[in-house]
Amino acid sequence: MKIDGVHYRTIWVGEDGRSVHVIDQTKLPFAFETVELTSMDDAARAIRNMIVRGAPLIGATAAYGICLAMREDASDAALERAVETLAATRPTAVNLRWALDEMSTALGKRQRDERVAVAYSRAAELCDEDVATCRAIGEQGLKLIRRHAERKGGDRVNVLTHCNAGWLATVDWGTALAPIYMAHDEGLDVHVWVDETRPRNQGAALTAFELGGHDVPHTIIADNAGGHLMQLGEVDLCIVGTDRTAANGDVANKIGTYLKALAARDTGVPFYVALPGSTIDWSIESGFEIPIEERHSEEVTRLNGRTASGEVVSVDISAPGSAAANPAFDVTPARLVSGLITERGICEASHHGLISLYPEALDREGRKR
Amino acid sequence: MKIDGVHYRTIWVGEDGRSVHVIDQTKLPFAFETVELTSMDDAARAIRNMIVRGAPLIGATAAYGICLAMREDASDAALERAVETLAATRPTAVNLRWALDEMSTALGKRQRDERVAVAYSRAAELCDEDVATCRAIGEQGLKLIRRHAERKGGDRVNVLTHCNAGWLATVDWGTALAPIYMAHDEGLDVHVWVDETRPRNQGAALTAFELGGHDVPHTIIADNAGGHLMQLGEVDLCIVGTDRTAANGDVANKIGTYLKALAARDTGVPFYVALPGSTIDWSIESGFEIPIEERHSEEVTRLNGRTASGEVVSVDISAPGSAAANPAFDVTPARLVSGLITERGICEASHHGLISLYPEALDREGRKR
Repeated sequence: MKIDGVHYRTIWVGEDGRSVHVIDQTKLPFAFETVELTSMDDAARAIRNMIVRGAPLIGATAAYGICLAMREDASDAALERAVETLAATRPTAVNLRWALDEMSTALGKRQRDERVAVAYSRAAELCDEDVATCRAIGEQGLKLIRRHAERKGGDRVNVLTHCNAGWLATVDWGTALAPIYMAHDEGLDVHVWVDETRPRNQGAALTAFELGGHDVPHTIIADNAGGHLMQLGEVDLCIVGTDRTAANGDVANKIGTYLKALAARDTGVPFYVALPGSTIDWSIESGFEIPIEERHSEEVTRLNGRTASGEVVSVDISAPGSAAANPAFDVTPARLVSGLITERGICEASHHGLISLYPEALDREGRKR
Repeated sequence: MKIDGVHYRTIWVGEDGRSVHVIDQTKLPFAFETVELTSMDDAARAIRNMIVRGAPLIGATAAYGICLAMREDASDAALERAVETLAATRPTAVNLRWALDEMSTALGKRQRDERVAVAYSRAAELCDEDVATCRAIGEQGLKLIRRHAERKGGDRVNVLTHCNAGWLATVDWGTALAPIYMAHDEGLDVHVWVDETRPRNQGAALTAFELGGHDVPHTIIADNAGGHLMQLGEVDLCIVGTDRTAANGDVANKIGTYLKALAARDTGVPFYVALPGSTIDWSIESGFEIPIEERHSEEVTRLNGRTASGEVVSVDISAPGSAAANPAFDVTPARLVSGLITERGICEASHHGLISLYPEALDREGRKR
């Protein structure tokens, strides 16, 4: 996608062919800065501190983390150490694990002196695949938005989204936002209700920044407001992303997603989850088995903002001395999900639905059992 | 309740017997400041700008606004103007209207030269009645908490609340928090999950401040987190307040309440609403007829916080140029409410339930129809 007319991906290799560059998402929307990652530790830190975030982009960054590790030491032991370190950075998103597995498979059978080149090549492929996957998710989801636009006789289609599952969460395009960009590009009147997404405000900071950059009409709302808007008929459909999808169709996504799914069910609003196949964890049979990351309480009690003079400062916003808790994800049961939008099509949120699109998983599951 | 060992109400008359004093709730939790209201316009501004907030305290402030108006001009026309101005300050809370009706009734039949004294006397009575009512709500709600404590064999009882329905929202004690203070005072192990309550953060700023001041164990959470905690069994019951209760038991409360009620229903957690009879609007048969205040979008995109150096600043937190919407309340349908905790007892959230406690309303309704 473009920023000020310049096309960007969220992660790329520098002209030296070695260094890895990412957009510092902790600085958005106040500053657009890029960060150079020169070591595996840099990559791990970027994931842990959420300089990069979003399940697909976390996977891509981990893949390049392996490249940087191989530059320092291409031994089996170093590969194992790097996989372990990177896997431990964030517990909930499964693409991280998936990308590391892909890299391990690609490198495991290679000689040490080939590993650096193979790693960069495989990481680049994973990124290109992510872009293609997101584009395909967009095309699938676009059909849904078109259907709503037709049903409304061309009147504005209002989509509610939570957190950021846009191009900043992936290598390009995004998952939940890809259909919205495509709908906008083909001239449909689409408007997005952007959940602020406390505590880290990825909606107000990142999704609004993205949509604004692409001139997509949108309105930021407090996370509390979505149910009310659904009651009023102001939401035609919800589309969100997911960090991990269980084999039964349950999804773990940013904290608060479950509340919107409940409101959608209560008010008859369709609730869709957009995801690449790489977020499906076939080894997990219920979303409630997914580990939920507990992040630092300061993310709740303190936040960054820009003063009238343009300075970005960190401020405390809670009663001094009060404790805070900060679970980062919640689980939305499949029963509340109208459908899963994948790169291969839209399916029911169920084991049956997922298997209809990913039949190869049956073999894998068979092997496992 | 006490602040630093000194007993406060949220509104009081100064030693001069004329000026009205309130706690500036926009400055909490960073500073404890009081504001002197010397005119009806001061009172209207204090309500509109949320220097005072909370349905019962809004009513009390409006009552004193009438006192201040009468000091300037005790004519019928001035009384009418004052009622009109004060009634227009906030559209959703019905206690405001109720308190103004009480004042009009008390003053209407009096001579002009008696009105100032009668106004101050009636306003003081309304405040004392509010304190007694809240104490009675607390005693009713305490029974619920005791029952949970017994069921858990003395283990900690976890209560989730939204926004601030504590003593700062009333003259003293609070509605939803009154049972919690009483439970804590009698030695029950009660812990409160405090919803931050975006966009104005009354939970993180006021409820946490109140509970901390009274040493009640509590944890601030993002509004997004409550559903997840209920899924995990970390919430034993929810207690919230309401700004207006329809005759069918639907409640309008701070935006986001509906989402918590949905999660409570989905996870089997009891969801109670605490209210004084004065918040019941017998003229409204469904919560969806209650006017919902739309507040300024800057309350979503900008907030106050304290920097590391102790300065309180206003910061922008959203993508520049993005619009925001700010509905202040939502409606929780009676079907999601386990019970209404009133000063007269706990009843089903239904017309039948309300009439069982307020049978005199039947006469009023009969007269109306």
